[in-house]
Amino acid sequence: MKKRLDQLKQTAKSQGQEAVLITSTANVYYLSDFYCNPKERFLGLLLYTDEREPAIICPKMETSLAIDAGWTHDIIGYEDTENPLEKIPFVSSLAIEEDHLIVARYNELKRLQPSLSLSSIDGALLALRAAKDDEEIVRLQEAAEFADIAVELGVSVLREGVSELEVIAHIESELKAKGITKMSFDPVVLFGPNAANPHGKPGTSTLKRGDAVLMDLGVMWKGYASDITRTVFFGEPTSAHRHVYETVLEANEAGISACVAGDQIKQADIAARNVIERAGFGEYFTHRLGHGLGIEVHEAPSMHGNNEERLENGMALTVEPGIYQSGDIGVRIEDDIIVTVNGPLVLTRYPKTLQII
Amino acid sequence: MKKRLDQLKQTAKSQGQEAVLITSTANVYYLSDFYCNPKERFLGLLLYTDEREPAIICPKMETSLAIDAGWTHDIIGYEDTENPLEKIPFVSSLAIEEDHLIVARYNELKRLQPSLSLSSIDGALLALRAAKDDEEIVRLQEAAEFADIAVELGVSVLREGVSELEVIAHIESELKAKGITKMSFDPVVLFGPNAANPHGKPGTSTLKRGDAVLMDLGVMWKGYASDITRTVFFGEPTSAHRHVYETVLEANEAGISACVAGDQIKQADIAARNVIERAGFGEYFTHRLGHGLGIEVHEAPSMHGNNEERLENGMALTVEPGIYQSGDIGVRIEDDIIVTVNGPLVLTRYPKTLQII
Repeated sequence: MKKRLDQLKQTAKSQGQEAVLITSTANVYYLSDFYCNPKERFLGLLLYTDEREPAIICPKMETSLAIDAGWTHDIIGYEDTENPLEKIPFVSSLAIEEDHLIVARYNELKRLQPSLSLSSIDGALLALRAAKDDEEIVRLQEAAEFADIAVELGVSVLREGVSELEVIAHIESELKAKGITKMSFDPVVLFGPNAANPHGKPGTSTLKRGDAVLMDLGVMWKGYASDITRTVFFGEPTSAHRHVYETVLEANEAGISACVAGDQIKQADIAARNVIERAGFGEYFTHRLGHGLGIEVHEAPSMHGNNEERLENGMALTVEPGIYQSGDIGVRIEDDIIVTVNGPLVLTRYPKTLQII
Repeated sequence: MKKRLDQLKQTAKSQGQEAVLITSTANVYYLSDFYCNPKERFLGLLLYTDEREPAIICPKMETSLAIDAGWTHDIIGYEDTENPLEKIPFVSSLAIEEDHLIVARYNELKRLQPSLSLSSIDGALLALRAAKDDEEIVRLQEAAEFADIAVELGVSVLREGVSELEVIAHIESELKAKGITKMSFDPVVLFGPNAANPHGKPGTSTLKRGDAVLMDLGVMWKGYASDITRTVFFGEPTSAHRHVYETVLEANEAGISACVAGDQIKQADIAARNVIERAGFGEYFTHRLGHGLGIEVHEAPSMHGNNEERLENGMALTVEPGIYQSGDIGVRIEDDIIVTVNGPLVLTRYPKTLQII
């Protein structure tokens, strides 16, 4: 944590800022090991570019958790009846998270400190967080292993008549028994045509012979997220469905292979999309290839076809092409990978060859 | 929905605005019945104060869901490679959600439309949403009934050696079987001294004789949240613990009774706090009395001791006093209520008399 604070301090100092105000749960956690999500209440980590002590500003009822998390610097607790922004000492210039701070607080800060010069620290934070260190990669690998187990748990209860929600209940309940306290998002299990909506919602639909089963889920583990999608067939697929599956699998593998350190991010999206377009399914791949992964299940970089940023050693990414044919079938295959100088390291390992239950 | 759109339009028109841009998932849902949470992606509902058609701006992959939700006006889908803010037509003045919009998008809007005059529509939205209509109250009542069932499910599996997470797994799994697809937040089940931390996290701690068991949970039902807390004793409580419980219960009842339409909100907090202070536990009640409840599990108004706003007919609120004695015991008793002209209507009905398992 000290190294991360020091790096951020140096960047802000070189930008001529007197202090940095970090306000997102994820970035405060990244910099302090203190995970605090006070919802509509204010959270801040104030970092000076000189020798003054950094401070965490949080609801009073959370202050003991900051100490428990190992934070040894200042902690400023506030009551619900107080204005937390008044706790921020006067500074001449402040770099803020423009990608997180809401306009109401921004305007309030300007009201309280009219001469304050405000700028963005988002780029520096993205750069810091995008390249994972060894400790983070270990946690991501462990999170991915639990994602593999989760898919296995889901597949193990597929039988005629089981509902999407029942499959999810089984997965979550078994994971809790293993000490997993939090999924990285509400798990998605969709049967047959339900999966043709890339953001479909699980419900009480029951499984029928011939359905494809799409599972998209992940767990939080030691503060880090995993995110896997597998599609399996309940009963023999039609040759058309088989063709869709094989195309998505080929796109997934092409996308992963294109995750080469130093290359442009868009090249991975294009590599996967080319496979799907060549097979004639281009119009059915309606989303980007993937996204960064870490403390948040969706973080930078965005893996889309116009992103000309470069892939860097240590980046954690999802690669998740899909084909969605309305009313018929949806197939998506998603892996978590780490970009390394030796090529992509695939963290999720649940088998991808076409599986018939 | 039409009525809500019309009301908002009138308010914005009277404020001299050409259009309103709604950007939060909850308010877009409130106004359109379209629930869309595209995370870091942009979502907008653009409402003109003249006769132009309103429009929803959302990721292209979500547009079919807007139609499914019954939205009959314009829908503007955008690709991941596009800048969604460029889809907003030029207007002279725009009221925005300052409590939701992030500074980066605010600055981008000002860059794209330099002559644009921006103001806040938050107050009008809070006022609209705070007073629930009959349809909303029915949904809140149903959500509260499932919360009662959830507590009952949790209590039913309390036995020596069960872990906090196992209790949660049972609750969630049984609720899913009843078609509940989403909890309103990660359920909290805490044993013994773990409950003394008002934001403690459930884990693998196991239940022992003499533990108090605190359960704080709720469900989402037809878009509306419930939120209940009950504390029960596993084995005979000490007289000190019994005294803590009876004090919190008295505070809960005093807080509820003080929820009188027309009175100041702070009076409810003060009424409950007085009970706890008189019993000598004032320093252990470290949070506000409660919060508004609706599409979001935490919404306006904030039930704290400095809030001089008035309670209104139709407001949905939580009343949740607690006493937290570090290392020893935590007791919280929380109900969901509706403020009515005939006094508070209590939605959550799981018994509150001291229960020994």
